[in-house]
Amino acid sequence: MRWIQGGVTAAQGFRASGVFAGVKKSRKPDVALVVSDGIATAAAVFTANRVQAAPVLVSKRRLRRGTARAVVINSGCANCLTGAAGIRDALAVGRAAAEALGVAERDVLLASTGIIGRRLPVAKVARALPRLVKRLSRVHHEAAAQAILTTDLRPKEAAVEFAIAGQRCRIGGMAKGAGMIAPSMATMLAVITTDAVAPPALLRRLLRQAVERTFNRISIDGDMSTNDTVFALASGRSGVTLRPGVRAERFSRVLIAVCERLAAMIVEDGEGATRTMAVEVVGARSEREALAAARQVAQSPLVKTMLAGGDPNVGRIAAAAGASGARFDSNRLEMHISGYRTVANGTALPVPESVMRRLLSGPAIQVRINLRAGTAGSRMLTCDLTEEYVRINAGYAT
Amino acid sequence: MRWIQGGVTAAQGFRASGVFAGVKKSRKPDVALVVSDGIATAAAVFTANRVQAAPVLVSKRRLRRGTARAVVINSGCANCLTGAAGIRDALAVGRAAAEALGVAERDVLLASTGIIGRRLPVAKVARALPRLVKRLSRVHHEAAAQAILTTDLRPKEAAVEFAIAGQRCRIGGMAKGAGMIAPSMATMLAVITTDAVAPPALLRRLLRQAVERTFNRISIDGDMSTNDTVFALASGRSGVTLRPGVRAERFSRVLIAVCERLAAMIVEDGEGATRTMAVEVVGARSEREALAAARQVAQSPLVKTMLAGGDPNVGRIAAAAGASGARFDSNRLEMHISGYRTVANGTALPVPESVMRRLLSGPAIQVRINLRAGTAGSRMLTCDLTEEYVRINAGYAT
Repeated sequence: MRWIQGGVTAAQGFRASGVFAGVKKSRKPDVALVVSDGIATAAAVFTANRVQAAPVLVSKRRLRRGTARAVVINSGCANCLTGAAGIRDALAVGRAAAEALGVAERDVLLASTGIIGRRLPVAKVARALPRLVKRLSRVHHEAAAQAILTTDLRPKEAAVEFAIAGQRCRIGGMAKGAGMIAPSMATMLAVITTDAVAPPALLRRLLRQAVERTFNRISIDGDMSTNDTVFALASGRSGVTLRPGVRAERFSRVLIAVCERLAAMIVEDGEGATRTMAVEVVGARSEREALAAARQVAQSPLVKTMLAGGDPNVGRIAAAAGASGARFDSNRLEMHISGYRTVANGTALPVPESVMRRLLSGPAIQVRINLRAGTAGSRMLTCDLTEEYVRINAGYAT
Repeated sequence: MRWIQGGVTAAQGFRASGVFAGVKKSRKPDVALVVSDGIATAAAVFTANRVQAAPVLVSKRRLRRGTARAVVINSGCANCLTGAAGIRDALAVGRAAAEALGVAERDVLLASTGIIGRRLPVAKVARALPRLVKRLSRVHHEAAAQAILTTDLRPKEAAVEFAIAGQRCRIGGMAKGAGMIAPSMATMLAVITTDAVAPPALLRRLLRQAVERTFNRISIDGDMSTNDTVFALASGRSGVTLRPGVRAERFSRVLIAVCERLAAMIVEDGEGATRTMAVEVVGARSEREALAAARQVAQSPLVKTMLAGGDPNVGRIAAAAGASGARFDSNRLEMHISGYRTVANGTALPVPESVMRRLLSGPAIQVRINLRAGTAGSRMLTCDLTEEYVRINAGYAT
């Protein structure tokens, strides 16, 4: 397995583009198009929010057939809380894309991200679609990755080349994140492409597994979006056919690696983030309790502000673990921060503040909590909560 | 029922004091003492955190008898994650208080608030106790309320005079909050006193009910402390005897009013808070789901930063409600902000930004969400998330 360039068009059979259509006030690129040269098998994981955006509802319906040709994504407007008019707007964008591409409407998937509660400027997006089609290329993957960003600072791309049964195969993708990122479901926008031959049901299962272990293990602010979508498209161009068993397992491991890298990029580029924190909980009575404890620590505003200040206070971490519902004896609790033991037998150890400050000052902090109540473990990845996060979100709609 | 002055000493039979003992670096008052002239019946609600501070463990054990004479509270140090040494420290403070007061050790209750993981400077606290005893007075209630504060800006006191069966009775109290405030359990420090005659079991039940409806319905940052404690002491000096039935119900209503006022004061004085938001969810399928939705909205960093900026974005509120697990049809969702309808049938209404800004700019915002899925409702009270909150918590231990 080898990391390569190429993002969402690294796999054979895909082209992409991104342009400014006029949705964003900032005049930055705001519509992306990813197209498969032929019909691709397709799967997706969507937000579990009760309030779902129009493009989520439309794409969900279209994916029942398990195939697709294109994905249109706009940033700057979520097309959510827009009622029947929002559905009509989403369908109109899909229709314009189908016409410009010369494909069937039902083969166009849709996603949107941005402000909730505003109508999508359909005419502007539709007018941009012929331009997007004209620019489609295997080299324009980064333009597509740029066009799906909102408050993200950097585009997020990852791609891998690997072999299955001696045959070369690729998985690549792009993602956006930044805010309204929470664990426990699909939590951002991503498009994953591969040139493997993947039956829709198998692709769906492998994507679900990968999302559960990667995108669902990150948290920026604990908020869950109405628009979160991860698409996977398989062109089949490599000729490598996936089957349940060894081949699917190999593919699954690589898919998880790609999703994990994109998920980490989302956390690193979290709104206002200056450092990341990996929270590992071991010694729990069950994986569910381990995850609950890791999540509570990763989402605690007090832990996250502490991390922003690089300010030593292991008590906040212990308090969050204790509030998670995970069962443990606090007199047995043990904690390491970036390899240094800070709590033993439920007692904070006298770590010099200068050492603690050093432990908390790097760009990536590791917290390891041993509940010493069992053998299960889990992990979460998060970032710090800074004044910049508040600045960004207090002024987002303006 | 009449609001009166007097805080924790408004009820007959109680005296209080507060001094600077040397726990806080800021040289602000840091130890408070509340004493009942005779033996009082006593009850408490403690944090549900798995990690509990030494004073919580000691007070819990002492309260099994249902009586007490005194409460010693220090701020500046939580005496938590301090192991067996922390228990010894708490016992030593209790012993010093018992000696200075001439009462039995088992009749002294303890609470601490402040930094976790540091040893309590017992000698300093013990040295201050004779001074605290000498200053005990019915007029020093505010000194006590001052001494339990950490990052709070204002002392929090409330007291009421009312009649039961024609006899005058009082309930008063003091509280501290500011940070690490989360709903779903006792979430701060408070001492409630009354001169009613209340059997311990009844006092315990009424206190639990009141805490559940007031202190457990507020959130500053969603974090749950290791030290949260609400004490209730009944001196019996009014001669008004509570019995299950009409008298207990009358008392319960007043107790809830006092706790509600103290809880509101905690939110208004939340770390960095500039405004409060009451979230009311109606039309839910069950009270549990209504509370889950209200809590998710009240704890959403995106909603709370929006409130800080006074920035209109109803989508964030709808997204949080949708992520709560409460079951509803998003196409029926309705929302009012401070009386103004902003969402109808799941569609954001075109409210001019100038109007929205006005709605979100007052000191107290009301959000009313109708899920239109049933008849149950619930409420939460929260505050905005500001850059000041991050500044306070990034530098707290320094």
